[in-house]
Amino acid sequence: MPGFRKLGERQVYDGHLIEVAVGTFVTPDGEEFEREVVHHPGAVVVVPLHGDGRVTLVRQYRAAIESDLLELPAGKRDVTGEDPRVTAQRELAEEAGLRAGHMELVGRFYNSAGFSDELSWVYVATDLQACPTDFQGVEESHMTIEQVALADFPAMVRDGRIIDAKTIIGLALVSSDHR
Amino acid sequence: MPGFRKLGERQVYDGHLIEVAVGTFVTPDGEEFEREVVHHPGAVVVVPLHGDGRVTLVRQYRAAIESDLLELPAGKRDVTGEDPRVTAQRELAEEAGLRAGHMELVGRFYNSAGFSDELSWVYVATDLQACPTDFQGVEESHMTIEQVALADFPAMVRDGRIIDAKTIIGLALVSSDHR
Repeated sequence: MPGFRKLGERQVYDGHLIEVAVGTFVTPDGEEFEREVVHHPGAVVVVPLHGDGRVTLVRQYRAAIESDLLELPAGKRDVTGEDPRVTAQRELAEEAGLRAGHMELVGRFYNSAGFSDELSWVYVATDLQACPTDFQGVEESHMTIEQVALADFPAMVRDGRIIDAKTIIGLALVSSDHR
Repeated sequence: MPGFRKLGERQVYDGHLIEVAVGTFVTPDGEEFEREVVHHPGAVVVVPLHGDGRVTLVRQYRAAIESDLLELPAGKRDVTGEDPRVTAQRELAEEAGLRAGHMELVGRFYNSAGFSDELSWVYVATDLQACPTDFQGVEESHMTIEQVALADFPAMVRDGRIIDAKTIIGLALVSSDHR
């Protein structure tokens, strides 16, 4: 929207994964206002789609919600300047033990643009071959792998088995391509 | 996942919308670890679906990404204890100038469970009637309304016109119900 502008920001928290700032902005009418912004490096999300229509998901503990969550393989873009497709290949291998002969970008999304600049890149991975997993961190070392049928995806959202945004989006985008 | 537990947390930032904490957790093996957690009150998202298959979207400036964004009507759950269906009715009226004769929960999702506890409730609103808008805050006062065909949704994600997580999820869930 032409007319809104950012004047600057002051950092209020410099963390391990996130940085939090209060930004000052100005409206097209010249009115100044402040908004909290969580800076995040962004993420990649991979839909590992097997030839028989199954998708490999992972289940891991998520500290922020104090619960485990059924998710697509994914990871932060924590290597500065790395092509997100390379990050996607690495996360797919580390978490799901899969290598993709074909990896295609199907969409990008802002997870929660009301307060965060996190941008996620969604890939569909096909032509899959097994490789060793390489779990990073304590959550991944307790991760389990589950296979679901892509066709079951809308029902799994409706009944609450899938409640993770990136997983709903990845499966939705791939489903709409394979209708 | 049984075995992971939260031991406690210390607040590092107490903001207007969000609160940031560093939590201490323990694995099933007894190993302690820390994770940053952004506490958020949660949100409601509304898919205003007209009888002719169009959906009402809003376009507004989002400070966190320094850009405007095409979105479903939505809002924070900022009234303690309020039924999210009531919040959804209010946001639909305020932002889109619509009242729904029928409002149905179609799913819930965590926006970014890697660092935030934000949980969003998605409703489909039908039997729609016009009412006055009531914009809250400087972004909404410059908001514009756009109508899109639900059938165009996969293409609009693919070409980058829709890049907002809650909007992709809301339109995907309603599309899968209306196939």
